[in-house]
Amino acid sequence: MSEQPIIRRRQVTTGISDSRVNNAKTQSQYQPYKDAAWGFINHWYPALFSHELAEDQVEGIQICGIPIVLRRVDGRVFALKDQCLHRGVRLSEKPTCFNKSTISCWYHGFTFDLESGRLATIVANPDDKLIGTTGITTYPVHEVNGMIFVFVREDDFPDADVPPLEQDLPFRFPERSEQFPHPMWPVSPSVLDQNAMVLGMHRTGFGNWRIACENGFDNAHILVHKDNTIVHAMDWVLPLGWVPTSDDCIEVVEEEHGPKGMMQWLFTDKWAPVVENQELGLKVEGVNGRAYRTSVVMPGVLMVENWPGERMAQYEWYVPITDDTHEYWEVIVQVCDTPEERQKYQYRYDHVYKPLCLHGFNDCDIYAREAMQNFYADGTGWNDEQLVSTDVSPITWRKLASRWNRGIAKPGRGVKGAVKDSSLIFKDTADGRRPGYKVKKIED
Amino acid sequence: MSEQPIIRRRQVTTGISDSRVNNAKTQSQYQPYKDAAWGFINHWYPALFSHELAEDQVEGIQICGIPIVLRRVDGRVFALKDQCLHRGVRLSEKPTCFNKSTISCWYHGFTFDLESGRLATIVANPDDKLIGTTGITTYPVHEVNGMIFVFVREDDFPDADVPPLEQDLPFRFPERSEQFPHPMWPVSPSVLDQNAMVLGMHRTGFGNWRIACENGFDNAHILVHKDNTIVHAMDWVLPLGWVPTSDDCIEVVEEEHGPKGMMQWLFTDKWAPVVENQELGLKVEGVNGRAYRTSVVMPGVLMVENWPGERMAQYEWYVPITDDTHEYWEVIVQVCDTPEERQKYQYRYDHVYKPLCLHGFNDCDIYAREAMQNFYADGTGWNDEQLVSTDVSPITWRKLASRWNRGIAKPGRGVKGAVKDSSLIFKDTADGRRPGYKVKKIED
Amino acid sequence: MSEQPIIRRRQVTTGISDSRVNNAKTQSQYQPYKDAAWGFINHWYPALFSHELAEDQVEGIQICGIPIVLRRVDGRVFALKDQCLHRGVRLSEKPTCFNKSTISCWYHGFTFDLESGRLATIVANPDDKLIGTTGITTYPVHEVNGMIFVFVREDDFPDADVPPLEQDLPFRFPERSEQFPHPMWPVSPSVLDQNAMVLGMHRTGFGNWRIACENGFDNAHILVHKDNTIVHAMDWVLPLGWVPTSDDCIEVVEEEHGPKGMMQWLFTDKWAPVVENQELGLKVEGVNGRAYRTSVVMPGVLMVENWPGERMAQYEWYVPITDDTHEYWEVIVQVCDTPEERQKYQYRYDHVYKPLCLHGFNDCDIYAREAMQNFYADGTGWNDEQLVSTDVSPITWRKLASRWNRGIAKPGRGVKGAVKDSSLIFKDTADGRRPGYKVKKIED
Repeated sequence: MSEQPIIRRRQVTTGISDSRVNNAKTQSQYQPYKDAAWGFINHWYPALFSHELAEDQVEGIQICGIPIVLRRVDGRVFALKDQCLHRGVRLSEKPTCFNKSTISCWYHGFTFDLESGRLATIVANPDDKLIGTTGITTYPVHEVNGMIFVFVREDDFPDADVPPLEQDLPFRFPERSEQFPHPMWPVSPSVLDQNAMVLGMHRTGFGNWRIACENGFDNAHILVHKDNTIVHAMDWVLPLGWVPTSDDCIEVVEEEHGPKGMMQWLFTDKWAPVVENQELGLKVEGVNGRAYRTSVVMPGVLMVENWPGERMAQYEWYVPITDDTHEYWEVIVQVCDTPEERQKYQYRYDHVYKPLCLHGFNDCDIYAREAMQNFYADGTGWNDEQLVSTDVSPITWRKLASRWNRGIAKPGRGVKGAVKDSSLIFKDTADGRRPGYKVKKIED
Repeated sequence: MSEQPIIRRRQVTTGISDSRVNNAKTQSQYQPYKDAAWGFINHWYPALFSHELAEDQVEGIQICGIPIVLRRVDGRVFALKDQCLHRGVRLSEKPTCFNKSTISCWYHGFTFDLESGRLATIVANPDDKLIGTTGITTYPVHEVNGMIFVFVREDDFPDADVPPLEQDLPFRFPERSEQFPHPMWPVSPSVLDQNAMVLGMHRTGFGNWRIACENGFDNAHILVHKDNTIVHAMDWVLPLGWVPTSDDCIEVVEEEHGPKGMMQWLFTDKWAPVVENQELGLKVEGVNGRAYRTSVVMPGVLMVENWPGERMAQYEWYVPITDDTHEYWEVIVQVCDTPEERQKYQYRYDHVYKPLCLHGFNDCDIYAREAMQNFYADGTGWNDEQLVSTDVSPITWRKLASRWNRGIAKPGRGVKGAVKDSSLIFKDTADGRRPGYKVKKIED
Repeated sequence: MSEQPIIRRRQVTTGISDSRVNNAKTQSQYQPYKDAAWGFINHWYPALFSHELAEDQVEGIQICGIPIVLRRVDGRVFALKDQCLHRGVRLSEKPTCFNKSTISCWYHGFTFDLESGRLATIVANPDDKLIGTTGITTYPVHEVNGMIFVFVREDDFPDADVPPLEQDLPFRFPERSEQFPHPMWPVSPSVLDQNAMVLGMHRTGFGNWRIACENGFDNAHILVHKDNTIVHAMDWVLPLGWVPTSDDCIEVVEEEHGPKGMMQWLFTDKWAPVVENQELGLKVEGVNGRAYRTSVVMPGVLMVENWPGERMAQYEWYVPITDDTHEYWEVIVQVCDTPEERQKYQYRYDHVYKPLCLHGFNDCDIYAREAMQNFYADGTGWNDEQLVSTDVSPITWRKLASRWNRGIAKPGRGVKGAVKDSSLIFKDTADGRRPGYKVKKIED
């Protein structure tokens, strides 16, 4: 006979507490966010740095599960769905262009108009009745100050409804100086500013974009940075962390025509530095360090003002590739009006900011994000996590993102990551290659 | 509150077109083909080259999700299911044979009769009542001119119904010379011909067998070959492609006792070379190259007549291993009646055909096939693809394959690939090994 | 039109036999065992050797899908769930401890009491209302003679019900000498004996823990060892195998307060050595070798008495990590009352037992276990396997395990292995790392 195994039960004294701030009611307010494993669609995302796409160069990337091919012609960048409508291969795998107004599939010669995506012709089948009746989706492009942005949209999202890039970028100054005064530092430069010099890097993060994004403006993760070289090099004395002291410690911005996001009132009396933990016998004296302020706007763009130096701002994007990978973008912006200023900034970026900040400092954020992936990957983390008062930041973000996203990306179809482990991926890993962002070109 | 995100809709102006030739009605005619991810069963497939299985050697392979072990005794090759009925290990992992008429499992000594598959004895349990009451499936073998073919069948497929190998091989000549006249070249040799010398290779392709197979006789993929060394070495001038000019451009053969397949009337007025594409300003003059003709028969065997040289034919198989890997076979056949002819052919194969054709030329087909895998791997590609008039070839093939296959292979049970990512595979890849075709022997 | 493919049916003459001993009725008696892919929970398992956890060292492991962190303070070992209740990262990835009574999360400073698991404080949020209201599960620890054992339990399993370690360890002697007399050898030492010297190793096995465990006491797998160096070095002449000759060849022990398990009456008239197989013409003469006896107790602990030498016993554990990996433990125990004895035993272990037994001999068991994984990984093996009379051992084990386990582990939640193939794992393998047992530390 087969008895069921004996299970003894008792009152749970550890485990999930009702005192957590993200109870069921709170969670119900950001369900759309929980559903956005593949990202928010119909938003602007950075695709490449300008220097990564030379004249006539073709590159393929993937954002929100959508393969995208970019080509630059006479300086202008075009973006189309990187999946031939015929047999689904990626055009970018073997770039084939016969003129300046089209891109052709290297396999069967299906040729698409760069401007409209329309099937313009088929190399070896010029009279086929399919020509002109179909096409692939195009994606609006905005290139500014060294960055190429793409509006990643659903196939049926109308051109007329495409918002300006500004609506998906952080709050700008001095326009917002009155709304968000910051006596402690000069106005923060924007990627869109005239003479803005944008320096930075991007790499693939192995984890979902949401847990990466939340780490960016989480005010309680200071611990991971305590041993950073930059901290000690600058003789900073960091507090143990920050706690909100007022209900309006975060300001949510939901103006109809502006970016939707939130600003955190750091370095004001709405957030208090924690300098002591009696339980642990920890005490910090003579706190000093760089004053900064973080904000985040849809679709997940971080701005760190006055960081990593004066008259600078660091911006970060966590661009969804699949549901378990994202492209991590870090850029530092400074306005440089003269060649001398540009040269000086470039030098300082190469020798200080890139090695000590974008790497040394932010590398710690990367392992923190990857460390969360197993917990959230199977969906259980979103329910099991127990958040506290300092998590007002991610919770506020989750709610506003649930209200203001322009669409939730569906799981990728017919793309890398749609089926979790194709032998193709096994072959890559077995060959010692890592899953990546850019499409690997075929060697002739 | 949690609003659903706003979605704006409009008329779709790009996307899937009704003008494609594979509309819903057409697709319904090859549903069985769409279901055959793991291949067609109850057919003949190549297993190994004769030189890969020396006297008394044992090798394990997998076809259509079925593990198969081969052993050669006194020259004769036997094939059985390579999965011990006791605890399911593969006999081929550690070949153990105590006599010429059986193969024993290296683990617990279950011993099977090579001829019948019957459980003949158990090394350490000679009187067990299971002996003689059960066994493993055997697979008919046909070895000819250096190739070992196996009839891969369902466990209950009767010996009496096993068709001759000829029924699963390409159309033969001169028998078919009247039916398929070809003034431009001599009769094509067959693997079955007397004194046929068969040279070739096989390797694992990472992708489903169907998309590999369709590429083999697709007349529109000429683009991928335009830069091949062989093409330039021979001063060939290829057309942009070929378009059908007549409804009978392909002849379907469905005789009761012959191979089921199709012959393409290439290099006749039923197919026109495309030498110009005005839209792209492309024009080809003085077309010349090697005249050839492709046909395909169940279960997916390609014949390229008059290729890569005179009095030769290239045959290809795309043998399903799992639903996302296949073994790609390429062989070139020439009849050589004298040792001199054999020696000369071998030399030319080693120094021209293998490097420039089987590798240089067909390697381009391999990357084209792998490039399609993501699109078809999750099943969406079969519905999303938009085929055109030149795709009459794959569509005709899909329909006849749906009508004439002898069975659709079920997903593998208890074999590699049945569960997508076992830690065993991870261990392999982590150790720098690629998923392969032959079973890796255990080192003592 | 799309016909269904023609399928011909006939009487099955091979395939699964009714004569197998594990028919449907028998299988129904061990359904709970078939359900225990992730292991049995609420049992004692070895976690680490004492020398692997120095004073103040922190290590993370995973057992039954549960991440566990161990820390040694003032000699005492504490074990807690290695998953921060805040955002789910593993505490062990970057050990952070501010005092002797707690362990803190390196990410946001959540600090847990080592003794109770209670959330004691949050480094930068000392007044949060969550503090004291929640916590993480703790696991009772028992360290003895160089081994650290952990009681792996469900979150709500009461301390009061935790059984002593003895209940999950093999039968002890001389207490059992009367119950299990063994004239052929001295009493077997136990891990718990005074002055017991325990030497051994553990490594990750790629396969489910059950098929690994069953191999340990399976009396029919002698074939895999026939070529072992130790066998030839000792001039052993092994029989072909062993067959049961009596219904009481195995004694099941189910006393209320003792270990639940079974003892096999090897080297008695209840098991007969097989020295001949006429069908294969095999005959063994002058059988001689080391007399031993195997038993197994819940949750899957093997004892091999009088092995690999006199006054010794080998113990093995197959600790579930996920449903397709387990940690394989092999230890050899000998009582050494003097430094000279200890030194001599250590020398012999280093130069004979470890290389020739734990490696040479048992390595053959490892590949046998991994060879079964594909067959059982998709669940089909448990139904398709055809067991015989010598399999009375695993069948008896499966039944008693189904009756006496203290709980069936649920699939891991939010841990490595819960989602089969996260990109994190791909990244690991692509970087040439193998999935492992201990958590890989983050390099600063």
